[in-house]
Amino acid sequence: MMAVRKTPNATPTVAMVGGGQLARMTHQAAIALGQTLRVLAESPADPAAQVSPDVMIGSHTDLEALRRVADSATVLTFDHEHVPSELLEKLVAEGVNVAPPPHALVHAQDKLVMRRRLEALGVPVPRYAEIRSVDELDDFARRIAGPVVVKAVRGGYDGRGVRMARDPSHAREIATAFLADAVPVMAEEQVNLRRELSALVARSPFGQGAAWPVVETVQSDGICVLVIAPAPDLPDDVGAVAQRLALELAAELGVVGVLAVELFETVDGKLLVNELAMRPHNSAHWTIEGARTSQFEQHLRAVLNLPLGSPSMTAPVVVMANLLGGPDPDVYSRYEHVMANDPGIKIHFYGKDVQPGRKIGHVTALGTDLDEVRARAHHAVTCLRGPVDA
Amino acid sequence: MMAVRKTPNATPTVAMVGGGQLARMTHQAAIALGQTLRVLAESPADPAAQVSPDVMIGSHTDLEALRRVADSATVLTFDHEHVPSELLEKLVAEGVNVAPPPHALVHAQDKLVMRRRLEALGVPVPRYAEIRSVDELDDFARRIAGPVVVKAVRGGYDGRGVRMARDPSHAREIATAFLADAVPVMAEEQVNLRRELSALVARSPFGQGAAWPVVETVQSDGICVLVIAPAPDLPDDVGAVAQRLALELAAELGVVGVLAVELFETVDGKLLVNELAMRPHNSAHWTIEGARTSQFEQHLRAVLNLPLGSPSMTAPVVVMANLLGGPDPDVYSRYEHVMANDPGIKIHFYGKDVQPGRKIGHVTALGTDLDEVRARAHHAVTCLRGPVDA
Repeated sequence: MMAVRKTPNATPTVAMVGGGQLARMTHQAAIALGQTLRVLAESPADPAAQVSPDVMIGSHTDLEALRRVADSATVLTFDHEHVPSELLEKLVAEGVNVAPPPHALVHAQDKLVMRRRLEALGVPVPRYAEIRSVDELDDFARRIAGPVVVKAVRGGYDGRGVRMARDPSHAREIATAFLADAVPVMAEEQVNLRRELSALVARSPFGQGAAWPVVETVQSDGICVLVIAPAPDLPDDVGAVAQRLALELAAELGVVGVLAVELFETVDGKLLVNELAMRPHNSAHWTIEGARTSQFEQHLRAVLNLPLGSPSMTAPVVVMANLLGGPDPDVYSRYEHVMANDPGIKIHFYGKDVQPGRKIGHVTALGTDLDEVRARAHHAVTCLRGPVDA
Repeated sequence: MMAVRKTPNATPTVAMVGGGQLARMTHQAAIALGQTLRVLAESPADPAAQVSPDVMIGSHTDLEALRRVADSATVLTFDHEHVPSELLEKLVAEGVNVAPPPHALVHAQDKLVMRRRLEALGVPVPRYAEIRSVDELDDFARRIAGPVVVKAVRGGYDGRGVRMARDPSHAREIATAFLADAVPVMAEEQVNLRRELSALVARSPFGQGAAWPVVETVQSDGICVLVIAPAPDLPDDVGAVAQRLALELAAELGVVGVLAVELFETVDGKLLVNELAMRPHNSAHWTIEGARTSQFEQHLRAVLNLPLGSPSMTAPVVVMANLLGGPDPDVYSRYEHVMANDPGIKIHFYGKDVQPGRKIGHVTALGTDLDEVRARAHHAVTCLRGPVDA
């Protein structure tokens, strides 16, 4: 008889800072994997806190709360990028396994740090400048001789903190307001866009990487409304370049977990890096049904240094449409109609209060014909949102 | 401007009796749908209680506990068939929406009631008899002139309460033991089996039905170890007959929710009904990744009288293998190897204590070649189970 260890079946706990929809969907993946997701939420009404029993209420800027949620967890990871670096550095010094580590995460927190690092690595980015005064802005605007975008260096998402200037005086106005609030500012050229793409990869501490197909993200008012996987008419070699870029960036920056590289495809076919996110990302919600391994499962596998799962697609075309709240909050009463209209549509609700323009869920359609799949996704969110004229 | 209702987004609560893995996986589906699954669990350590915040601890035989969990829920449904009919009838009389209703559920609780009803409906079943004495057993055995199976009329699952008799004296022995314990007994002929099949359907109160492809279930020691979807080499017309039978039974019995019809395919190609289950069923765990709508989502949609989702398959071949505990409980330490070996395998852990022979999880493999997909699923559970010689 061979000797058999009798260790109990010890499954890990992953602590996640933030109780939003990303934590909510990560919890779904953790259930299948037999893992425990412990969430640090701001409120018991947060999307993840509604559906998970292992919730601590506290702020992501409170070191004590961060220590508590990390205590006895295998790893601490994130639903958002808003935990201050200095707190994370303290946790690391205390022996907490933070993934992604703060020296990587800072590139998803500070747009200026990110731009400088990418530039140093030779990665194509839009022309940019740090802006400490309106004079510096004028200099930059003159240098690029085109429209500029003014950005808060930290804290923006879904287009918040990112302002497209109509003209030089509008740019000056925006920068002046930011600077008056002591918000660090940068400026960038407004790129002549063909479209936006997103290259999503995961990386484990072991160094394994996995890349999902590059997708197109369709924005409206700075918010992503539609994601098309794979990006239509993207030449294979360009897709491969974007995937390789994202994998190399993940390795170079020491990312652990999911990395989203938001890309501009310019009208002349160049790829420029727009933003980085180091967590499950809206541009990959399609992977829940559309890929063999969802980004949520993959993030858990990566931060736990488990072998990564297959990122291959489960259907030729997948379209994810974000559900934004409309004036009528009674979304549930309409989902019966969406289900009746399209038995194949997958609906995801985040448990959020419905407010106009707020992301409260998403739908995913899968199939073979892009126009048909896109129309199904669009129809479903349009119906769920309800009447726009209130 | 058109008038818009300002009703809040009121999403429903489904109450489920039982906190096992079926409730656990139903909770995952409820999260996406924005619904709340409230669970009546025996213990906080139950599979569903570990992962859900809305848990009541209590017994399924305690009317007060049943009332509490049903209170303010839209509907009361089940993770198992063990709630006594008389308690359910009381709840119905008090206005609780019970799905499936007790007059349907009794056919999944009482094998003799089920056999008689099916016989009356003209549905093919094995020859059977109620056994109130050893003499009645002898009469039955003589009549069928072949091997018999002796069954407890109520309470069995996973082969419990079902005993294959080796010979007439063994049959007498089993029946005597049951009868001595005042367990109602029946006997059936041992069918000359080609294999076992399962036809899974869902039905809503509105009357909508949906049928997944008929699957083959492979048993070992009375426990299902493997499910192959679709059932290999099943002629289309036979599959259609089985699906129609299940849909008609669901309608005839007034089932609400998922109905599993376990079938014997005899060596001469006949289909006989073996068992009925009225809840998500082990033979359809493959639908989580393998069908556009999983049985868990479908059950929620059905009991809430929502339109049903598409039961179509997401891959040509799907194989689910049950993970049974082995002598070494340290399953988690082996799942790294399974993930490394097969990046496409999907692992589901139920959070149960590992005990030899106990169902503690399952894996699903998807692909196009049956032999390859089946080998992958088999390899994964074999590796996870660990050494068999302790």
